Amino acid sequence: MSKKILIVGGVAGGASAAARIRRLDESANIIVFEKGPHVSFSNCCLPYHLSGQIENHEELVLMTPDKFFNQYNINTRIYNEVLSIDRENKSIKVKNVVTGKTYEEGYDKLILSPGANAIVPPIEGIEDAKTFVVKNVVDIAKLNQFITSKNATNVSVVGAGFIGMEVAENLKEAGYNVTLIEAANQVMRTFDEDMVQILHKELFDQGINLILGDKVTKFNNSDIVLESGKIVQSDAVVMAIGVKPEVTLAKECGLEIGETGALKVDSNYRTIDKDIYAVGDAIEVTNAISRKIQHLPLAGPAQKQARAVADHIYGLPVKNTGYIGSSCIKVFDYNAACTGLTEAQCKNLGINYDSVYVIPQDKVGLMPDNNHLHFKLIFEVPTGKVLGAQSIGKGNVDKRVDIVATLIKMGGDIDDLRDLELCYAPPFGTAKDAVNHAALVALNIMNNTFKQVHVSDVRKLVEENAYIIDAREKNEYEEGHIINAVNIPLSEIRNRIDEIPTDKPVYIHCRSAQRSYNASVLLGHLGFENIYNISGSFLGICFYEYFRDKSENRKPIVTNYNFK
Amino acid sequence: MSKKILIVGGVAGGASAAARIRRLDESANIIVFEKGPHVSFSNCCLPYHLSGQIENHEELVLMTPDKFFNQYNINTRIYNEVLSIDRENKSIKVKNVVTGKTYEEGYDKLILSPGANAIVPPIEGIEDAKTFVVKNVVDIAKLNQFITSKNATNVSVVGAGFIGMEVAENLKEAGYNVTLIEAANQVMRTFDEDMVQILHKELFDQGINLILGDKVTKFNNSDIVLESGKIVQSDAVVMAIGVKPEVTLAKECGLEIGETGALKVDSNYRTIDKDIYAVGDAIEVTNAISRKIQHLPLAGPAQKQARAVADHIYGLPVKNTGYIGSSCIKVFDYNAACTGLTEAQCKNLGINYDSVYVIPQDKVGLMPDNNHLHFKLIFEVPTGKVLGAQSIGKGNVDKRVDIVATLIKMGGDIDDLRDLELCYAPPFGTAKDAVNHAALVALNIMNNTFKQVHVSDVRKLVEENAYIIDAREKNEYEEGHIINAVNIPLSEIRNRIDEIPTDKPVYIHCRSAQRSYNASVLLGHLGFENIYNISGSFLGICFYEYFRDKSENRKPIVTNYNFK
Repeated sequence: MSKKILIVGGVAGGASAAARIRRLDESANIIVFEKGPHVSFSNCCLPYHLSGQIENHEELVLMTPDKFFNQYNINTRIYNEVLSIDRENKSIKVKNVVTGKTYEEGYDKLILSPGANAIVPPIEGIEDAKTFVVKNVVDIAKLNQFITSKNATNVSVVGAGFIGMEVAENLKEAGYNVTLIEAANQVMRTFDEDMVQILHKELFDQGINLILGDKVTKFNNSDIVLESGKIVQSDAVVMAIGVKPEVTLAKECGLEIGETGALKVDSNYRTIDKDIYAVGDAIEVTNAISRKIQHLPLAGPAQKQARAVADHIYGLPVKNTGYIGSSCIKVFDYNAACTGLTEAQCKNLGINYDSVYVIPQDKVGLMPDNNHLHFKLIFEVPTGKVLGAQSIGKGNVDKRVDIVATLIKMGGDIDDLRDLELCYAPPFGTAKDAVNHAALVALNIMNNTFKQVHVSDVRKLVEENAYIIDAREKNEYEEGHIINAVNIPLSEIRNRIDEIPTDKPVYIHCRSAQRSYNASVLLGHLGFENIYNISGSFLGICFYEYFRDKSENRKPIVTNYNFK
Repeated sequence: MSKKILIVGGVAGGASAAARIRRLDESANIIVFEKGPHVSFSNCCLPYHLSGQIENHEELVLMTPDKFFNQYNINTRIYNEVLSIDRENKSIKVKNVVTGKTYEEGYDKLILSPGANAIVPPIEGIEDAKTFVVKNVVDIAKLNQFITSKNATNVSVVGAGFIGMEVAENLKEAGYNVTLIEAANQVMRTFDEDMVQILHKELFDQGINLILGDKVTKFNNSDIVLESGKIVQSDAVVMAIGVKPEVTLAKECGLEIGETGALKVDSNYRTIDKDIYAVGDAIEVTNAISRKIQHLPLAGPAQKQARAVADHIYGLPVKNTGYIGSSCIKVFDYNAACTGLTEAQCKNLGINYDSVYVIPQDKVGLMPDNNHLHFKLIFEVPTGKVLGAQSIGKGNVDKRVDIVATLIKMGGDIDDLRDLELCYAPPFGTAKDAVNHAALVALNIMNNTFKQVHVSDVRKLVEENAYIIDAREKNEYEEGHIINAVNIPLSEIRNRIDEIPTDKPVYIHCRSAQRSYNASVLLGHLGFENIYNISGSFLGICFYEYFRDKSENRKPIVTNYNFK
């Protein structure tokens, strides 16, 4: 007898599961229920409608019920909301939201793919404010129509995660004055505080009014009142604080909700009910590095889970190896990518880790359009196991992070990373790729070849009047340098050893830590014991300091920024 | 007592070893001997001088003896040729080619990094022809000066490996009529014959006169006479047939030469003489997949070897894991990258392998500037161990190949490849990345979910009047299709089952094999036993056939090409 499989939610996970089931079983009776008007739209592309990169919002709809039926023999019931699940009788109660009629539908297997909802807290005055969320095609069309038809000038975005950032950028590209408000002290908490300063700078340089560490306390019609007392006038407000797993149906029928607030599933994405599976943004997963349970609302994992569910229903073995959470985002002219654990997460987890921050070029310096590649590698001490990576730059940073994501998934360490043989030709990269380079620096740290401090430590060093050597050439030093840093170029250091104090710590930097590395090692060989290389060096320091200097009107620790 | 370390050859390997040694030992006496005028130039960037992308050939010189001395305290003797090695007395005989004076220099350790020479066979008339090679800065400056000062119009390149291809492209960019002559039936033998047709098409479309399967038999002043009788008039000829390891010195002092003609070294890059090491293009290495000895003249491995030698001299442990040989090249608007073994190599090695060829988009189809990504994955049967990958397209193909290179180095299989979690956002890729996608198709092949034939089989199928289903929609079919293919769109196939013969093989394709995959599986479920999906599908077929149709004036097997 043919199986009857019902799927709640047609986007991403739901549609993928349906298509896979059809390929496994031509006779299955598959019905997808979607309370909205669309089955399978491109969730991740929604923000790009605002800038007109995706002109017509209908383009965002990837699959129509007709096409789904004709190509896959899958029934899709749009505008059909599932009201409840009767686990005992294996049936669901559905409401056709157009006709208002309710009906029941039995199942052999039920797959929940309801996604997550945008969090909109009950802030005072919100009911009278022009607030929007960006979760589906209807949302984005509504927002875009509102701001265009009302000739909006000032648009604010609350929350600087993926969606908030992408919405802010696309609104700016469309010509609006954009304010981005984030309660934390940084955007994109998938990145560490040091790396993210590069994005803060870019948002600032591109004219986004970025407000960090401040909260919305009240809406006063078109005014957003912040905790600091600041008032931001906004013709429209996009709420992008975060998402919350949609678990209402599951909860009501007694399925187990995990500690993250998402649905608990077993290694085959099955709930405690052996005939009910769940996938996508509604469930929680195991982190493959920390082994902790987490909520990971990403498109790639949703697709993998959908396929795994279909396979499990049909008895095909699937191994659940956990998730590491790779992601990337474009922020105006910059690309940013990350995988695995951040330094902040390692700290919270009590992992003994260290990190290196290097800024090589993304391709051979001689080639036109080569760019800095900011690359941070996080690894366990003393095992050298690679835990995470973050990269930001104008070039192909996603490539470097995908390489590390692959290495992490395969359980690799920094020796493995050093040994990777990657494609090289001048238009693509350098013979020693950024990831090899970072691994070499990490190995030096592990082997105590030299000690390091980080860009985040430098302001304090300057305030304490620490002894800092700038190992760049004189002309570079003169273009801009750390206040009070002593210029001893690497090319002169052997002849000027006597100038270097032996009774206190010596901190060394150059432009991107290559020359300062050589200088640090050299001084070590000559018997100096308290030598620290400044990881990230002058470039890293400039990027790290710039936004806060500007936005907080803070006294710079450099005589002049230099981002070249 | 401080070590005295002599290094023969200052480019790539030599300079890297010297710098690393200095970091390990401030007291070492390091002398680099280079018979040419330059220590450390950018070998790989040489061709880009011809198009003016690198305007001044002096830019190609990365390091001067002065800078090397000032920054690293390393002595470089340019214009000093090493004539012989006296192993017994641990000294070398050197000739200053400027003064003509010879002298001896003793060593504790000797590192050979002499590189490889361009092969120039003794073809009849070559002495009177205007031939050039591209191995160093002097070569490229000489070539460029000749063709610009003589107002050359027609320039030929013999040999279509990395250097030949890059030189041909850069000459074309500079405005010359370029003929590229290759004795094999394809360019770039690091790629398989099917993939490389995309490059043949691009060379053809960009106006390169590409001559394959033909050999130079004679030079008649400015005429190149080919085996076929063809005559190519050339104002200048670049010989880029290949390179031969420079082993003269090593041979003369009794060091062992391997079966590849390159120098044999142990796992620490040490020759049979415990005080003589060798690195770079002069040595042979072990392939980490096939376990065979091979000559691998690439910049990345040379750097790794240099570092390993320095480490070994100073007692640091280094593991030699072998090499897989990743590489990439830009060919006009296309990028091409490969890693591991090709199908052709697997055949030669007698490895039981299979391959899949998929053509997904390199980023979300809705985003502007998305492109086809041709991706070929080669894997062992029945283990699923990943053996190699090749990718060609206008976008970031190198990323996908680097991911596979990482996976191969870590010993991964197609299950691992399927499970990789890669960065995704619409400007970067797709939620199911090309590599995940290829792994899924490979798993289907391994599990016998469907059978496949390859684009290279299709012409024969057409000639044999095989039954071919085109599963695209009618409008797509009408824009161009395989001669005699029957158009049964996936969306109609369930209603037109009766039309499909059960007494002979049925071959199915669509645009990029996604719909034909679904159709193949469907027909399998319905009891058809002889169903074959055409890997690469219509897009792959068009790319595969185009160049030979045009260049051989061959009758096309499609009514119209379609590359969209």
